Amino acid sequence: MYQQIADALRDRIAEGALAPGDKLPTEAELREEYDVSRETVRKAVGLLVNEGLVISARPQGHFVRKRQPMVFRPQAEFRKRPYSPEMDAFMTEFSAEGREPRQDIEVAIVEPPPEVAKRLHLESGELVAVRKRIRYLDGEPFNINDSYFPLSIVRDSEIMRPEDITRGANQVLAELGYRQERALDELYVRMPTPAETHRLDLSPGTPVAYHVVTGHTAEGKPVRVAITVLPGDRHVISYERIREVAGEDA
Amino acid sequence: MYQQIADALRDRIAEGALAPGDKLPTEAELREEYDVSRETVRKAVGLLVNEGLVISARPQGHFVRKRQPMVFRPQAEFRKRPYSPEMDAFMTEFSAEGREPRQDIEVAIVEPPPEVAKRLHLESGELVAVRKRIRYLDGEPFNINDSYFPLSIVRDSEIMRPEDITRGANQVLAELGYRQERALDELYVRMPTPAETHRLDLSPGTPVAYHVVTGHTAEGKPVRVAITVLPGDRHVISYERIREVAGEDA
Repeated sequence: MYQQIADALRDRIAEGALAPGDKLPTEAELREEYDVSRETVRKAVGLLVNEGLVISARPQGHFVRKRQPMVFRPQAEFRKRPYSPEMDAFMTEFSAEGREPRQDIEVAIVEPPPEVAKRLHLESGELVAVRKRIRYLDGEPFNINDSYFPLSIVRDSEIMRPEDITRGANQVLAELGYRQERALDELYVRMPTPAETHRLDLSPGTPVAYHVVTGHTAEGKPVRVAITVLPGDRHVISYERIREVAGEDA
Repeated sequence: MYQQIADALRDRIAEGALAPGDKLPTEAELREEYDVSRETVRKAVGLLVNEGLVISARPQGHFVRKRQPMVFRPQAEFRKRPYSPEMDAFMTEFSAEGREPRQDIEVAIVEPPPEVAKRLHLESGELVAVRKRIRYLDGEPFNINDSYFPLSIVRDSEIMRPEDITRGANQVLAELGYRQERALDELYVRMPTPAETHRLDLSPGTPVAYHVVTGHTAEGKPVRVAITVLPGDRHVISYERIREVAGEDA
């Protein structure tokens, strides 16, 4: 029975009869409408919370989740302006205009996690510098970005300072003689860890994208691994691809 | 208390003491180890199931989830061979070698869903052809791909036949005079709908990536929207980016 109530509510949300931000009927209203116990109503609503369709905001009640995703565009780090009019229009639609960005930066020297050591081809015992950032928009945490660099390369550079680098860490690497010519992006989709749930203040039913960039020099030396954790309710990740003259696609 | 037991089990999984595919201690063992009720043990294990770390395989018990993701490479549709040695190596690591692919194809003429109509710039009432595919690997459903085309363009083409098109639907579009020169990729991350859970046979705690490609001709006419639903436990999505001569990145 609770499945049927959940189905009915899900349909109302899908059809827009219950719009993003709308309050769900109260427990009492749902009990009366379906002639069921409080327990059954709670199970039905709990299911929608776990699916990420509904958020609980006690004591006010339950609400249809609003999504106001931001465009996360991995290609932007090397190409500020989009190539295509389609991407231009798309980004405007999801822009952060009028919203206040802020970031916390922490720098540390650490033993690399295994997934970082492997991608940077590090010898056992080699250390890395990591720049850990949490990015906020209007005070809400939007994503976590941890960027790792072989310590041997960046030891004496401004990458070690816990401040924003206006021209970008990639430019600093280039000035140090390690210009990145290629990047490999990996995207994994999973539920958040408890630590991520806490740092990003995630509601139940919010999966994350786990985005790993490995940057390589022309010689194929990996010099940077950047890991971004992107809550699914706050981001759309976007790429543009252009066919090349040779008939192949970028 | 159940949180603490879940934390302890999560740590053992993270450290590899419990490896992918391993059986969790039984309820009786956990009750004895932590001196708690059956109810508490069940809540602890249930939490890990919802986080997607553990799967339930009654009556055998609970197991650490194995991940054997496949590389999903959106760029492959126009560029068969990777550019970079890094992508080559990465794909080999996650290859489907020795696994048996199969797909079910269904073709229908439908009213476009609003998200498709908008991206294809369709007039109200215009119909689309949709090729709906479920792809299997070793009998397991791997992903769902629904590709939409304006009916006016593809009406008399082989896109309407529910068969594999060896040279690809994109090549058919090109032969019809609608060669795609640009594509915009959007990636959303969310929990699956009940229909997706059913079609893809998903375990609890398995989010999906929802990948939307819009293909445009050189003149900017959108001629294809392809929507792929990718279960997080079966896919890693990957892109390669190359800096161009002009100092900009592809």
